[in-house]
Amino acid sequence: MKILVTGFDPFGGEKINPAIEAVKRLPDEIAGNQIIKLEVPTIFYQSAEVVKKAIEKENPEMVINVGQAGGRSAITPERIAINFQAGSTPDNSGKGPKEGKIQADGLDGYFTQLPIKKMVAAIRHAGLPAQVSNSAGTYVCNHLFYEIQYLIHHDYPNLKAGFIHIPYLPSQARNGRYPSMSLDNMVTGLTVAIETAAMC
Amino acid sequence: MKILVTGFDPFGGEKINPAIEAVKRLPDEIAGNQIIKLEVPTIFYQSAEVVKKAIEKENPEMVINVGQAGGRSAITPERIAINFQAGSTPDNSGKGPKEGKIQADGLDGYFTQLPIKKMVAAIRHAGLPAQVSNSAGTYVCNHLFYEIQYLIHHDYPNLKAGFIHIPYLPSQARNGRYPSMSLDNMVTGLTVAIETAAMC
Amino acid sequence: MKILVTGFDPFGGEKINPAIEAVKRLPDEIAGNQIIKLEVPTIFYQSAEVVKKAIEKENPEMVINVGQAGGRSAITPERIAINFQAGSTPDNSGKGPKEGKIQADGLDGYFTQLPIKKMVAAIRHAGLPAQVSNSAGTYVCNHLFYEIQYLIHHDYPNLKAGFIHIPYLPSQARNGRYPSMSLDNMVTGLTVAIETAAMC
Amino acid sequence: MKILVTGFDPFGGEKINPAIEAVKRLPDEIAGNQIIKLEVPTIFYQSAEVVKKAIEKENPEMVINVGQAGGRSAITPERIAINFQAGSTPDNSGKGPKEGKIQADGLDGYFTQLPIKKMVAAIRHAGLPAQVSNSAGTYVCNHLFYEIQYLIHHDYPNLKAGFIHIPYLPSQARNGRYPSMSLDNMVTGLTVAIETAAMC
Repeated sequence: MKILVTGFDPFGGEKINPAIEAVKRLPDEIAGNQIIKLEVPTIFYQSAEVVKKAIEKENPEMVINVGQAGGRSAITPERIAINFQAGSTPDNSGKGPKEGKIQADGLDGYFTQLPIKKMVAAIRHAGLPAQVSNSAGTYVCNHLFYEIQYLIHHDYPNLKAGFIHIPYLPSQARNGRYPSMSLDNMVTGLTVAIETAAMC
Repeated sequence: MKILVTGFDPFGGEKINPAIEAVKRLPDEIAGNQIIKLEVPTIFYQSAEVVKKAIEKENPEMVINVGQAGGRSAITPERIAINFQAGSTPDNSGKGPKEGKIQADGLDGYFTQLPIKKMVAAIRHAGLPAQVSNSAGTYVCNHLFYEIQYLIHHDYPNLKAGFIHIPYLPSQARNGRYPSMSLDNMVTGLTVAIETAAMC
Repeated sequence: MKILVTGFDPFGGEKINPAIEAVKRLPDEIAGNQIIKLEVPTIFYQSAEVVKKAIEKENPEMVINVGQAGGRSAITPERIAINFQAGSTPDNSGKGPKEGKIQADGLDGYFTQLPIKKMVAAIRHAGLPAQVSNSAGTYVCNHLFYEIQYLIHHDYPNLKAGFIHIPYLPSQARNGRYPSMSLDNMVTGLTVAIETAAMC
Repeated sequence: MKILVTGFDPFGGEKINPAIEAVKRLPDEIAGNQIIKLEVPTIFYQSAEVVKKAIEKENPEMVINVGQAGGRSAITPERIAINFQAGSTPDNSGKGPKEGKIQADGLDGYFTQLPIKKMVAAIRHAGLPAQVSNSAGTYVCNHLFYEIQYLIHHDYPNLKAGFIHIPYLPSQARNGRYPSMSLDNMVTGLTVAIETAAMC
């Protein structure tokens, strides 16, 4: 199987985004599945365009987007993408999102096709913190997650996709007020999650 | 310089205690200082006796006790030990502590002699989460910290000592509800902290 | 306008549920709207049956379900109900839910029809903590919220409905580890929220 | 008995400080004890001077200082004041504190003379969140707490004193990210705490 795995670039004044740092360090092959790694801009709509083009080009069977959720303690596969965007923080285009629906004719929510409960169990079995998340928020992460699901429900019925949030890196959490996870553990956790997803 | 570094054994039903796991993996020498590693029982009074005997035997210039503080996100050098013990959780002797003063004629609190602010800065410089803590709690950790300070103020005026709390290991926080830190990062953080302490 | 407002009964060993306690104390009329108060069992499916019967009997223009979200600091109107149920805690029937979809042919998610952003602004204007929530969880609260939305999308297209989570009461949070809100403030906050919802 | 109860004025850009708001609303008499209420400036050293003058003038048997601890969920009587001040936030004089000891010849820590465990039990019995705190921090609150204890240990051996931290008011926590407590509940909790303290 061909799996497209994306990670966001740094944003919000951070010099680093654990998402792309972890995705870059994934093996090129996981349990016989080819892993195609893609950095995406933390920009509403543009991120989705970049991923859509890669889907057209690579024709993967699965797409997994990875993003940073500062403040979380665990690797958190997301259950649902919602048709709503909002947020006061400007994205990397310098503007914040226009609040409202992402797709005018899209459904209110789309569940991921990925086996998130099994993925969490596998990550925990590998000795790492993991938890299913029931909300990917309303910012660029949810937006990309939703756009890919919308694509699936309109043009790519056989494609499977999902979103995984990861914590801060230790270097981003040095003041001690937020949880973090080492890069090695993020790579291990994502590898196990992808391996499990690919088996279903 | 000779530095005695102690770590508690597993307690409270846990199979592992990051304290002794990290202490065991410290180098035998840090910046020219000899490191003597000691596992101590998570038992009120007994833990202090074990450390006192090691102080008599090894005659170190510095003692650093390491303990687990589940729920914390960072490596937290402690500022003060207080002359009070309490806690509902039985220690590894099966009994909880008798609530009240630790030493009848001890002062209410003793500051550590270690340069905790510099230690935090050094750990952060190494890219890891660190924060000074103003409370070591009232359980076995504070008890050991206080007993060693009491010893210093009565019998070993030249001895320097302090306490460092560390988070859960990832394997202890798999349900995703608590922060954790990888063992490698704990060892790196403690090594940098000890190196900094030894310079002052 | 006739507004049906429901509150769950105590569950999980608690003697009190702030939801029904606050709902009981709502005025019978809010800004000219008739308020019909209904206690519902914290039981999957049964709670929905009770509310459906009340909708058939009272024919309200709006339904607002209120539930407890222990650990939250604010009054949190929910954005979306999701077609999934799970939870290890037995409900008041003594059994936990069968994990999976709530309605086999239901959509993955349904947005509330209520003006949640305006409701939050109004509650804050009244000097009380409020925040939009993007996840009602996967337990009885989300289940009831989803069943009513499913009903709207199949039988009651003109009905408006939504869900509001409220924190613990102070008496439920006496150990000091969880946030809480006074009953008076809950009633004030819910009254303002209902008034705002009814205007839209 | 005559009890001097102090509350800090608003600081850090806040328009209100729950401490003085709650203290102002205390009864003038609690269980036969005369309550003298005093607003103190949130300024290092000046706050202590104001309280010392009031002690000289009123000659109370007990002094209770009340301060805001934003982020806490409960009423938290403090166990120990420590001989250390630090903080990056300027106080109401516009300057931050000079980091270091508060009193050059003061002990490292002083326990409160108040029955904090009984006070917590009484507040909980009144149905309100309460918890003993083992750290009053290193800012103006701890500074005032320490200065009064230093005074006791040097000039007023029979005086009893302590510090109680209280959460944000709801109006300070409207964004929903921090716990809060209603003013009525703060007044009730402080009244019960003072009554209990006066009995010991």
